[in-house]
Amino acid sequence: MTHHKQLSIGLFGFGVVGEGLYKVLQKTPSLSASIRKVCIKDTTKKRNAPASLFTTDRDELLNDEDINVIVEVINESEAAFQIVSTALRNGKSVVSASKKMIAEHLPELLALQQETGQSFLYESAACASIPVIRNLEEYYDNDLLHGIKAVVNGSTNFILTKMFEDKLDFQQALLLAQQLGFAESDPSLDVDGYDAVNKWAFLLTHAYGIIEHPENLLFTGIQNIHATDAKVAAEKGQQIKLVAQARKLNDGRVASFVIPQFVPQDDHLAFVKNEYNGVVIESGFADKQFFYGKGAGSFPTASAVLSDLSALRYDYKYEYKKLYHHQPNTLANNFYLRVYVSFTDWKYIPREKFEWIEEWHAREERKYLVGVLPVKELMENNWWKTNATSLILTPDPIIEDIAIQQLKKKSLELAGIV
Amino acid sequence: MTHHKQLSIGLFGFGVVGEGLYKVLQKTPSLSASIRKVCIKDTTKKRNAPASLFTTDRDELLNDEDINVIVEVINESEAAFQIVSTALRNGKSVVSASKKMIAEHLPELLALQQETGQSFLYESAACASIPVIRNLEEYYDNDLLHGIKAVVNGSTNFILTKMFEDKLDFQQALLLAQQLGFAESDPSLDVDGYDAVNKWAFLLTHAYGIIEHPENLLFTGIQNIHATDAKVAAEKGQQIKLVAQARKLNDGRVASFVIPQFVPQDDHLAFVKNEYNGVVIESGFADKQFFYGKGAGSFPTASAVLSDLSALRYDYKYEYKKLYHHQPNTLANNFYLRVYVSFTDWKYIPREKFEWIEEWHAREERKYLVGVLPVKELMENNWWKTNATSLILTPDPIIEDIAIQQLKKKSLELAGIV
Repeated sequence: MTHHKQLSIGLFGFGVVGEGLYKVLQKTPSLSASIRKVCIKDTTKKRNAPASLFTTDRDELLNDEDINVIVEVINESEAAFQIVSTALRNGKSVVSASKKMIAEHLPELLALQQETGQSFLYESAACASIPVIRNLEEYYDNDLLHGIKAVVNGSTNFILTKMFEDKLDFQQALLLAQQLGFAESDPSLDVDGYDAVNKWAFLLTHAYGIIEHPENLLFTGIQNIHATDAKVAAEKGQQIKLVAQARKLNDGRVASFVIPQFVPQDDHLAFVKNEYNGVVIESGFADKQFFYGKGAGSFPTASAVLSDLSALRYDYKYEYKKLYHHQPNTLANNFYLRVYVSFTDWKYIPREKFEWIEEWHAREERKYLVGVLPVKELMENNWWKTNATSLILTPDPIIEDIAIQQLKKKSLELAGIV
Repeated sequence: MTHHKQLSIGLFGFGVVGEGLYKVLQKTPSLSASIRKVCIKDTTKKRNAPASLFTTDRDELLNDEDINVIVEVINESEAAFQIVSTALRNGKSVVSASKKMIAEHLPELLALQQETGQSFLYESAACASIPVIRNLEEYYDNDLLHGIKAVVNGSTNFILTKMFEDKLDFQQALLLAQQLGFAESDPSLDVDGYDAVNKWAFLLTHAYGIIEHPENLLFTGIQNIHATDAKVAAEKGQQIKLVAQARKLNDGRVASFVIPQFVPQDDHLAFVKNEYNGVVIESGFADKQFFYGKGAGSFPTASAVLSDLSALRYDYKYEYKKLYHHQPNTLANNFYLRVYVSFTDWKYIPREKFEWIEEWHAREERKYLVGVLPVKELMENNWWKTNATSLILTPDPIIEDIAIQQLKKKSLELAGIV
């Protein structure tokens, strides 16, 4: 057996994921990784591990020369960033599960990796057990990544599944998700789409070399989905899911958004139920590939941390190939989206902004239409994010700039308008 | 942009995959890989590439010092092995798609890699576009890989799908698969399970560190599946697929087989239709993960070759971690399988070999039973591979040694025998 690095771990956080990791490590002796110290905030909680393992003093871990890996699975994003940057500077490898911190501090974290030469891995931060970062980084490292479409938030997917299949109401479904340990402690992080867009921010980096603060990405959550929308979906034999999607356009720029979307039954993502996550990668010649697994929860997250630890034994580093070795892509703002919008009153709908409207149902109490909007309208205005409206993308929603005039003409002809 | 290795490729073979790769490379300028020379056997065929590219002399490629990568996608396994070993010895990296050659020569190929220090990659050889080897090698490199279950042969899966869903007969379905380019030129390679077991042989190496000649693995194909079996499957709401499966048993050894299996509708593999492949990985804490994509055909295979080329720019090598860095696992021969067998006459069935029989249907012309056999019976005897019988595994077919007595007792009680 070849020699490889012995890992001596300093662990920050002993919540759902941290304790999960502690248990998982006990069951994987071959990894020869051991937790030397655990830093926690609250000393009053009962912990299922020897008391001697715990401390509340960060520096006991960060300055311990015998610790060569810091694993950081805490909830506060700013504290996490301090821990990670100090650890890297102190010559330690770092594994993190803090998606919010990574998304918000990506430029500094990239600089720190270059400056220190240390490994910083975070496979567990997106889609937990699905090795999506590793595959984007290593396997789709070429021009052929046409598109990527994913369910990246297990909590909202669980809620939508329970609402659609078990007819629970929103609050019941949310409570159940929290009880089962796959909702963030602050539910709005999941429900309003923040968690999804945070993950999406760094997935875009690995997929396309794009670095953008999550606040600048086009996104919303499932907070405005209405019973009417669920009814319409059921009539069409479709589901509604919170879908993160990116696609390379003809001009080489990348369309990206995280918005609820109607998903037909034969779509790969229709297979993704409950707390599971799924990623569909469309590449030039390989057609579609689909990765599926648990996207949240104690053990799935811990097992992804474990795979990062395993890779650290061989000094694995992300190379951010799309960023450093290719011409990075940029985000597009010149495409159009085919959208469904349900609403309480026409006054909330800026009809003049639509390129055209293909369908409208104005009789019911909750009205709805299907039409085409320039993406800029969604980027610049917020009428579609209020609870008087709910906007859901139609399947395959992107219309490219170059196709819009012809499609518009055809659509108006069909409607008998020209 | 960081510097990386320029690839100058010598390509052996310009059939479905070779020509696919040629086209794919033209569409991926960023890879900075170019084909310098192509070695072919038949000079009379018309080729969609400049004539100056082609030669029939291997040595023009193998001895060309400007060629640093040999890509080998020919059909003859022994010639492929000669090419690959010479190339490695001549200091070139090698990418191969020849599953049969890899499976049959794995010990020599492992030695050659150690001896020469060159990269030898073959992601396209198993499940084409699905990065299964890379994920087993890099991501599931720990004790937690409990099981793996896969559809690895697109051709038989296509045939079974067309037989079940479109009611084609076997010959029509096979012809269609060949026309579409995802059947081996010799159909028995697919139909009798040789192609599947070849892939399985080296997947077992990456998953568990097991090295075994494919002939020593337990396998069969779909050659004996009978119309009755399809009817039974339909009645149970199940499909029949050729499933390759391995599972770590309680004693640490690994159960492995490639045998047709009934697949319930809610199983991940039921999602895998036509020429697609699918891999379900069950790991200790991550639950089940599912990888799905095209498993055959010109472009999917070429795109996997491309990803290997892409990895070569960074001098990526398989580390065979399960083999060299862990205690390799060994194959088990002490477990039991719950099987369905249909047959023309009881005389073909060695009833005394069954631990117990749970179900029998003896009235119809084609009779069938469901019972439990020791795996040794299948390893040592061939009655179940003749066309007077067809043996199909039940879902979740493995019964461990330690559980057999209790289950047997329970089963006999249920049957009212004791």
